[in-house]
Amino acid sequence: MRILESYADILIVRHPLEGSARVAADYCSVPVVNAGDGAHEHPTQTLLDLYTIRREKERIEGVNVALVGDLKHGRTAHSLAYGLARFGGKITCVAPKGLEMPPEMLERLERDFDVRSESYNSLADFVSEPDRLAAQVDEPVLSVEVLRFIDVIYVTRVQKERFNSQQEFEAAKGSYAITTVLLRHARPDTLVMHPLPRVDELAYEVDADPRAAYFRQAAYGLPVRMALLAAVLGKHRTKARSVEGLIKRPADVDLTSAGVRCQNSHCVTTAETYLRARFVPVADRPNRACCYYCGQEMTVHVPRD
Amino acid sequence: MRILESYADILIVRHPLEGSARVAADYCSVPVVNAGDGAHEHPTQTLLDLYTIRREKERIEGVNVALVGDLKHGRTAHSLAYGLARFGGKITCVAPKGLEMPPEMLERLERDFDVRSESYNSLADFVSEPDRLAAQVDEPVLSVEVLRFIDVIYVTRVQKERFNSQQEFEAAKGSYAITTVLLRHARPDTLVMHPLPRVDELAYEVDADPRAAYFRQAAYGLPVRMALLAAVLGKHRTKARSVEGLIKRPADVDLTSAGVRCQNSHCVTTAETYLRARFVPVADRPNRACCYYCGQEMTVHVPRD
Amino acid sequence: MRILESYADILIVRHPLEGSARVAADYCSVPVVNAGDGAHEHPTQTLLDLYTIRREKERIEGVNVALVGDLKHGRTAHSLAYGLARFGGKITCVAPKGLEMPPEMLERLERDFDVRSESYNSLADFVSEPDRLAAQVDEPVLSVEVLRFIDVIYVTRVQKERFNSQQEFEAAKGSYAITTVLLRHARPDTLVMHPLPRVDELAYEVDADPRAAYFRQAAYGLPVRMALLAAVLGKHRTKARSVEGLIKRPADVDLTSAGVRCQNSHCVTTAETYLRARFVPVADRPNRACCYYCGQEMTVHVPRD
Repeated sequence: MRILESYADILIVRHPLEGSARVAADYCSVPVVNAGDGAHEHPTQTLLDLYTIRREKERIEGVNVALVGDLKHGRTAHSLAYGLARFGGKITCVAPKGLEMPPEMLERLERDFDVRSESYNSLADFVSEPDRLAAQVDEPVLSVEVLRFIDVIYVTRVQKERFNSQQEFEAAKGSYAITTVLLRHARPDTLVMHPLPRVDELAYEVDADPRAAYFRQAAYGLPVRMALLAAVLGKHRTKARSVEGLIKRPADVDLTSAGVRCQNSHCVTTAETYLRARFVPVADRPNRACCYYCGQEMTVHVPRD
Repeated sequence: MRILESYADILIVRHPLEGSARVAADYCSVPVVNAGDGAHEHPTQTLLDLYTIRREKERIEGVNVALVGDLKHGRTAHSLAYGLARFGGKITCVAPKGLEMPPEMLERLERDFDVRSESYNSLADFVSEPDRLAAQVDEPVLSVEVLRFIDVIYVTRVQKERFNSQQEFEAAKGSYAITTVLLRHARPDTLVMHPLPRVDELAYEVDADPRAAYFRQAAYGLPVRMALLAAVLGKHRTKARSVEGLIKRPADVDLTSAGVRCQNSHCVTTAETYLRARFVPVADRPNRACCYYCGQEMTVHVPRD
Repeated sequence: MRILESYADILIVRHPLEGSARVAADYCSVPVVNAGDGAHEHPTQTLLDLYTIRREKERIEGVNVALVGDLKHGRTAHSLAYGLARFGGKITCVAPKGLEMPPEMLERLERDFDVRSESYNSLADFVSEPDRLAAQVDEPVLSVEVLRFIDVIYVTRVQKERFNSQQEFEAAKGSYAITTVLLRHARPDTLVMHPLPRVDELAYEVDADPRAAYFRQAAYGLPVRMALLAAVLGKHRTKARSVEGLIKRPADVDLTSAGVRCQNSHCVTTAETYLRARFVPVADRPNRACCYYCGQEMTVHVPRD
């Protein structure tokens, strides 16, 4: 990064380690854009996702978005959840058992943005609530009644490797797949979005449905990223308040002098041991701190000032 | 392709599956250029081949081109054969046994363009016809007498993998190799062309011969492709009649409702099973049809309208 | 290269075989820039290295540069040594046993440029000369007294594969590593340079030292290469005398008619056997010749004219 910063006006970082883009920004004098860092975040995807929702639904505030798929590892779902929360969107989570949204994220959404999301394990059986009770299904299922309140179904890829066995994968598959049958129960103005590429959570038949917004969504990626480059490089003045004003970043908590390292095995500071760890406090939780790079929360036994 | 079409003004497709560029064109709203689809066709190479012939021989009509090498799998030879036929060129085939031009191609050249090509298995022994008879060589050899009528020797790569054994490959090698010895028997204005890269069908010594046109041919690729991009993108108005007028594409034969699929194992519709198969009729052959994508002809037992 | 020359205005060659860029230049009508050919040379790196020295030390003449690391295989060190010699710089060599500067290079530096370089095997123990004698260290060590005369420490990567065993590698490691401890003994205006990327011959702690010039050095690569492209393509008139005037290239010695080939196993003419070998005489050494491509010197038993 120290070399690249003298070759380019802006650096776009996509990297498997979580927090890597932030490390890059720490060492570079040119702007750094995070284009996906491991399972952590994917903010430019979120910009185009928010743009798609705003363009097609004419607002973000109050729009109810069902995030469907692997919500544990899916960085696009993570970034979109925070993005929606920031602009007043509503979040409904649908993830197979074991791939649910991390509890720290749900907590942070509530703490920082006052967003309380509904959570389900399946949208498979589009039975109504009474049917489900009769069928004695234990896991929470997003029913037809609830589906009518969903404005956007945002599906993400689920990778086979996330399951313990091929059998578990096959069993879970139906619970998050978007099919033409399912869409028969959705409203005529409900959008289907997907960051693409897809595996088999999105049937090819859905492509012909006008509610399938994912190719338009991908197309919006070009103007959104052009706008981002123009804004970051100062070619275009945005109406937004300065970024510094928008994001209140707390001062670091000094844990590194006590030898504390981030406990996330995918964090860039775990893999690149020569990096100095950095931590920020968690509001109202005196015994918790957050890795400045990958965002992992942890309990700390170190006095804070 | 659905994503790429929103990122680019034109898509250039090179793909191992036959018919892939046509599938891309079916799904895209921007122009798609086939830059080589498996063993099927390579039309931009043909454009530059035809340009080379026209520029160096001042015409295409009546020019006798010997296509030499693997004429079974060589997509550049296939595309060039049709290109020559369309503009009144003559075709002479020289291919080792087993790598001859497919019979359906020879038939189509005759049926659609009234081109009857001569076929030989070797240009190795540059013995005259009486010599060959005396030597009791069974396979047809392109003799010195015939070589005097060849205006362009168009050589293509022969891959070792096409032969059953290393022994067969070594045996066949001499039969299509262009050497300085062979060129001693060719006319002083006969061109040697090759789509490049070469393996060993083209001796390095030939490079110094002014009749070696292949590096000039490669250089023509740049202006020809610039012209193609300009024409397709509407930056340059061509004198040609519209493409629609030039190519009369017959309406599809409906075989898919009867469950018929293309029988070519390298066809894109065979590999990508979610694609709908498409077939077009073969003129004057009521019981034959042609895959719309890869061009494979097949016998069909389905009534045609 | 014959094809690429018709596609581009200039060709930049980086290739594992030594002499490959010269072969390219022999066959191309457009300018060819050597961007590193095996262990032979890396002249554009040298341009930026010389520019860095001149910019930061305000001159090259008389500047004492310690070349540290693998001086046997390191092409950047080889090219820089000749570059320094040409402009009146002084050279001090520090290389682990077995990775010293090749004797032919030392000879050529003295013969062609009257440069006699000092050679050491280690800069590890920063003991003074009397200390070293007391410690009975056999190998020559660059002592603190000598270090005070070094203006630039130019470190290069040492690859583990160059050693016979992991043990030998570990043992040698300390002998060429640049640490903050070592820099305590260097002058406040001594620069540390490195062509990058580094392995572990350059401690991360050194980055914070203002004498660490390697990131500035990398940044200079951009304007230097811009200037080179502009000069070679005739967009910028240099004040330099013509290249032809600067480099007196002797006429070839005809050894190829006697079947002589270059003896360097990494020479491009050894790997690409169809290439004609070329040799140039070595001044004042009638029984020696030099490969025109890779520069390898060899004893020849062929009469010279």
